[in-house]
Amino acid sequence: MTHCDSELLDVALELADAARAAILPHFRRHDLQSDNKDSAGFDPVTIADRESEQAMCAVLARLRPQDAILGEEFGATAGTSGLTWVLDPIDGTRGFISGTPTWGVLIAVSDDNGPRLGVIDQPYIRERFVGGAGQAFVDGPGGRHPISTRPFRPLNKATLFTTFPEVGSRPERDGFEAVARQANLVRYGMDCYAYALLAAGQIDLVIEAGLNAYDVQGPIGVILAAGGTVTDWQGKPAHHGGRILAAANPEIHRQALDILSAF
Amino acid sequence: MTHCDSELLDVALELADAARAAILPHFRRHDLQSDNKDSAGFDPVTIADRESEQAMCAVLARLRPQDAILGEEFGATAGTSGLTWVLDPIDGTRGFISGTPTWGVLIAVSDDNGPRLGVIDQPYIRERFVGGAGQAFVDGPGGRHPISTRPFRPLNKATLFTTFPEVGSRPERDGFEAVARQANLVRYGMDCYAYALLAAGQIDLVIEAGLNAYDVQGPIGVILAAGGTVTDWQGKPAHHGGRILAAANPEIHRQALDILSAF
Repeated sequence: MTHCDSELLDVALELADAARAAILPHFRRHDLQSDNKDSAGFDPVTIADRESEQAMCAVLARLRPQDAILGEEFGATAGTSGLTWVLDPIDGTRGFISGTPTWGVLIAVSDDNGPRLGVIDQPYIRERFVGGAGQAFVDGPGGRHPISTRPFRPLNKATLFTTFPEVGSRPERDGFEAVARQANLVRYGMDCYAYALLAAGQIDLVIEAGLNAYDVQGPIGVILAAGGTVTDWQGKPAHHGGRILAAANPEIHRQALDILSAF
Repeated sequence: MTHCDSELLDVALELADAARAAILPHFRRHDLQSDNKDSAGFDPVTIADRESEQAMCAVLARLRPQDAILGEEFGATAGTSGLTWVLDPIDGTRGFISGTPTWGVLIAVSDDNGPRLGVIDQPYIRERFVGGAGQAFVDGPGGRHPISTRPFRPLNKATLFTTFPEVGSRPERDGFEAVARQANLVRYGMDCYAYALLAAGQIDLVIEAGLNAYDVQGPIGVILAAGGTVTDWQGKPAHHGGRILAAANPEIHRQALDILSAF
């Protein structure tokens, strides 16, 4: 077994195939039940989340038994290779249970330095954004073609996305809004699909807070391969989660960081 | 020429095909330019909006020259039949220029009583929600099958969508938030796709304000055919636009109306 990134990428694509097959029979079913994981709020999980992660873990048990796994639903499994598969079986479960096409399956392979490759897969659209092994591409309704992030445009010409208007804590909301007030266009509700749009050169910034490692490592892998930058709000590595600033290029990253670092 | 609804529906589907073909070559192009229609804000329009409406008008000139047209980009054309084709060539242009899959082509045929049929088409996903001529169906990645709105669940179990957190004026935002505080799940950013999700039985309520006739007549046609209810915030007909309350069933409509009618 090697750590060759192109072999790892092949495994990642097989995981995404397995997750798609596990999830789609449940999507938009009228008898889909969701359980609430959060005693203080509403953090839904469904059988589709669990079956998606189980399907990916079964592939890894067969192809990469020496690697560790960090998954949203079933937690951590130790490994011996120094590599960890970081899996979010459905990112955006609130979108999933509402029928939107903006949730996704997130897959990353990480070593001590963070993600080496990433996948954002949207099973219903049959669209997959991939970064790693020296390439970044989308494969979907428009065919398969390379992707790259946008060149610089100043913040007052830029498009900014986040998922919830409340963003996170009160200071986190204030930080987001300080950037949003200067942006040309602000949009909500895209879940992980916003990171895919950033990697594909469609938007300039994604700002979020309160994320977990499995929420962000797949997007980081795709965005870095496509030419973008992802850090926390202090400019430090973001692959452990928390407050996220994803940017199309170093210049717009700097403009946003200058505002966010005060919060 | 007749006013038979099934013949009108065939024409509507041909319009949707023409719009799709006109729009998709422009979607996610890196050299797509948007012009701003709003001197006080940002209301983008692109060549894709204009070519989509022109393509639909060309079909109508050939097949339904006796009918009137009300389109977003090129305004009103008079007719003699008593029927009007109400066209939004791209609803959600902000989403379109950001690459999201949540914008859509909206088509309705109306008489003095409002929409007789409606279409919500999402060209990139290749997904079409149709209501009229005694049927309501979706045709997309999951195949073609009938759709119907959800049975009643109380507001504290319900899912509510709107496009922008600010919704409209300050009182309109207050009205929306009064309902949102009681809902189980609130989501943003779906443009016209939210109405499609309501018609397809995935969500319970869509509340918006400041809409035009062409923003809402296509959705009204689909939602009514699928079993839902659409009015303004006073319970009056909504097909001229303004403040919109779309509901999956009369009971949840009543619960939301009891709150909104005070604003």
